[in-house]
Amino acid sequence: MEIHSDYSSLATTLRTRRQRLAEKIAFPVILWSGGSSSRNFPANHYPFRASSHFLYFAGLPLKNAAIFLDGGRLELFMDEDSAENALWHGEMPKREEIAQIIGADAAFPLSALPTRATGAATIALQDASTYQQQADILNRSVTPSYTPEGIDRDLAKAIASVRLCHDTGAISELRQAAAVTIEAHKAGMAAAKTAKQEATVRGAMEGVIIAHNLTCAYTSIVTVHGEVLHNNQYHHPIQPGDLLLADVGAETPMGWAADVTRTYPTTGEFSSTQRDLYDLVLVAHDACIDKIRPNVEYQDIHLLAAEVIAQGLVDLGILRGQAADLVAIDAHALFFPHGIGHLLGLDVHDMEDLGDLAGYEEGRERSDRFGLGFLRLNRPLQAGMLVTIEPGFYQVPAILNNPELRSKYQDVVNWDKLAQFSDVRGIRIEDDVLVTTAGGEVLTAGLPTDAQTIEELVKLGGRGIGVNLT
Amino acid sequence: MEIHSDYSSLATTLRTRRQRLAEKIAFPVILWSGGSSSRNFPANHYPFRASSHFLYFAGLPLKNAAIFLDGGRLELFMDEDSAENALWHGEMPKREEIAQIIGADAAFPLSALPTRATGAATIALQDASTYQQQADILNRSVTPSYTPEGIDRDLAKAIASVRLCHDTGAISELRQAAAVTIEAHKAGMAAAKTAKQEATVRGAMEGVIIAHNLTCAYTSIVTVHGEVLHNNQYHHPIQPGDLLLADVGAETPMGWAADVTRTYPTTGEFSSTQRDLYDLVLVAHDACIDKIRPNVEYQDIHLLAAEVIAQGLVDLGILRGQAADLVAIDAHALFFPHGIGHLLGLDVHDMEDLGDLAGYEEGRERSDRFGLGFLRLNRPLQAGMLVTIEPGFYQVPAILNNPELRSKYQDVVNWDKLAQFSDVRGIRIEDDVLVTTAGGEVLTAGLPTDAQTIEELVKLGGRGIGVNLT
Repeated sequence: MEIHSDYSSLATTLRTRRQRLAEKIAFPVILWSGGSSSRNFPANHYPFRASSHFLYFAGLPLKNAAIFLDGGRLELFMDEDSAENALWHGEMPKREEIAQIIGADAAFPLSALPTRATGAATIALQDASTYQQQADILNRSVTPSYTPEGIDRDLAKAIASVRLCHDTGAISELRQAAAVTIEAHKAGMAAAKTAKQEATVRGAMEGVIIAHNLTCAYTSIVTVHGEVLHNNQYHHPIQPGDLLLADVGAETPMGWAADVTRTYPTTGEFSSTQRDLYDLVLVAHDACIDKIRPNVEYQDIHLLAAEVIAQGLVDLGILRGQAADLVAIDAHALFFPHGIGHLLGLDVHDMEDLGDLAGYEEGRERSDRFGLGFLRLNRPLQAGMLVTIEPGFYQVPAILNNPELRSKYQDVVNWDKLAQFSDVRGIRIEDDVLVTTAGGEVLTAGLPTDAQTIEELVKLGGRGIGVNLT
Repeated sequence: MEIHSDYSSLATTLRTRRQRLAEKIAFPVILWSGGSSSRNFPANHYPFRASSHFLYFAGLPLKNAAIFLDGGRLELFMDEDSAENALWHGEMPKREEIAQIIGADAAFPLSALPTRATGAATIALQDASTYQQQADILNRSVTPSYTPEGIDRDLAKAIASVRLCHDTGAISELRQAAAVTIEAHKAGMAAAKTAKQEATVRGAMEGVIIAHNLTCAYTSIVTVHGEVLHNNQYHHPIQPGDLLLADVGAETPMGWAADVTRTYPTTGEFSSTQRDLYDLVLVAHDACIDKIRPNVEYQDIHLLAAEVIAQGLVDLGILRGQAADLVAIDAHALFFPHGIGHLLGLDVHDMEDLGDLAGYEEGRERSDRFGLGFLRLNRPLQAGMLVTIEPGFYQVPAILNNPELRSKYQDVVNWDKLAQFSDVRGIRIEDDVLVTTAGGEVLTAGLPTDAQTIEELVKLGGRGIGVNLT
């Protein structure tokens, strides 16, 4: 880990977070940061990513560390580096130095951690060796925090309520992630016109993120096959007339994420059918963002997107009927089969390690409706929440060729008309929107969405953008 | 995984490998490919990397698959994709299609795997959930293969002997990894002159690797602090007079690696002290490569590097005495504290998951000498082995400020003279060399090593190189 920024306000930010947690629970807490995962052999590691819950309260991506929280008090548990480690990895900051930066009340070696175990709650980690350590030290089984009861679940609920709305420290990090993500997307647009393969565009985008010393918050999607929703292949050739969908987001060293999608014609010119559908998705995108303010139900924003898309498809002759009726029977989901977005913060799907505990208001559960089941967030919005807004239009073979769905929606889809739009496989437009009392503030507004500017950025081929990867 | 290349010769290559293994063992084998590791929450994955032993015999990076090998026969065990998976990740190739590509004799769902468990040997995987699955299906504890005895160790020894020397299929992949790595390093040199931070150079280099749809074989080292041997920080500013050390290698989609280091002045001009030490490391590098041929002991190549470096430091007035005497007391290791290199193949430290079983000839063990203990390969070379040659000169504070070492080597180091070379913190020059009957073939020879050409590449700032990241 790196100690190099100005951390003057970090301890204060973290103390406030800890205090807010202490007000919600009456038991002690141990949060582990986790260790590195090996990539095939022990000495070859994936880049270390600390647990988000640890990061939220301890601020720094310390490896193999733990914090003990009790009534706002913080104790740090970590071992100093060995001499051999200093030879290979350089001198690391000392435990006491780190303790001061994060405002710890005391600091101890890891061996002292078991003395704090009695009655402590925790959140289970994903990496198996830390998970085992958690069970060993707490001397009980540790289960995922979306299990029905117990202090671990109470802790998860308390942490979720604290982390739902972002403080100024978090928002500053989220703005930094958004700024670098915008630059990465511009580099991608610049590279698209001459790129012969999807990977070339991905290289241009991720190169910018790495060059800023940030990481990718998730596995990038950079594809001419946007109809594959989580497409992680990059080998397809880019051909004239292709739309390229790029869903790429940066993450700051302290772990805060951005999540942005743009879709553009690789030639720099939308066809008229592509433009029609792009503009429709953009209308839905803008309408949803306009609706964002505290107390609005996020599911209503999803349904608004569904209705706008359904109406647009009626206007284009692809669907038949009234928009509201089409949404009621989930016909929109034939072409927009995912949710309008999700929470964003330290995780790109923020707190998804807690299942739906953060995303769903207490007492609510996932719908089994085709057009609602993939919605990851179902709460009234509050000021300080950061959400994505990401409507899309896709022609997914697994949906449109499904005999059951074809039969169910036979009368509302004009299949011949749809066939005229075959040069659109997938379009998504995604921005990161902070809920404020004045409405939605788009943190990623520096990246254009309108078709004409997008076309111009692609046509520029990098000139005036500062990045050129050939 | 992607099915898109020409795999016409793959099945033949794999059959030959399986036949070679079958000649060495008399028991059946199950090799698992492994699963994805989660990055903080379950749906966020690190990029999947299949086990190298699986890749060697099954050829393709299949996730959650296993192969059963018995007397040259191969059975593939994997599940078909679910319908939901097809929606999110696209249609994957069918089991039968994959079986044909890799030349499997039969293919079954994973649920059939336990029927093959009796008496089968395996190699333990790093990811905990697969490791657990291995123990469950084999109904016994699975231990690392460098444990003293048993069929798992016999299997590991057999696999190591098969994998030590590369076949033409492997060499073709290794050449591809080398070629892209060369391009990445040129892009780094091009970016160095205007870069203000290490991360900028890293972004330029990794951007090229990603753009070619390859991955990084290991965590890149791109630093002005080359004296930190495994430096994985990239935030340091690049200042006039800095040498930048870049140790970056690409890995092909089938898993074959390159591992290359270059060190260059970020201004495009070595100082005279930097040039003196650079040229010394280069002399050692060239001398070692010249010595490579079958039957030469790799440890002798290491000792040659040590002696060349010791002699050079005597000539520069940094060390006092006779080179051979200095090496005998490990004085070279004050400045060259690691081994001259290692095996390279599917892993960047090939087969290091087997401990020293592949790297060390049977009956040999690591030395406890300061100047030999970090040597990762100690065998007579054979045609078809790929090794790195990577001499270096470093001023490591943890070594040079160690009171015990300072006292031991007080008389042989001219500390005042050394102080004149303070603008050299770390230099390493590393290439990938294939052992052939005619001598060493440098797969990475397309990347210059001589100081003058390196200076020119940096000064060009990207012109004529085809990559420009500003």
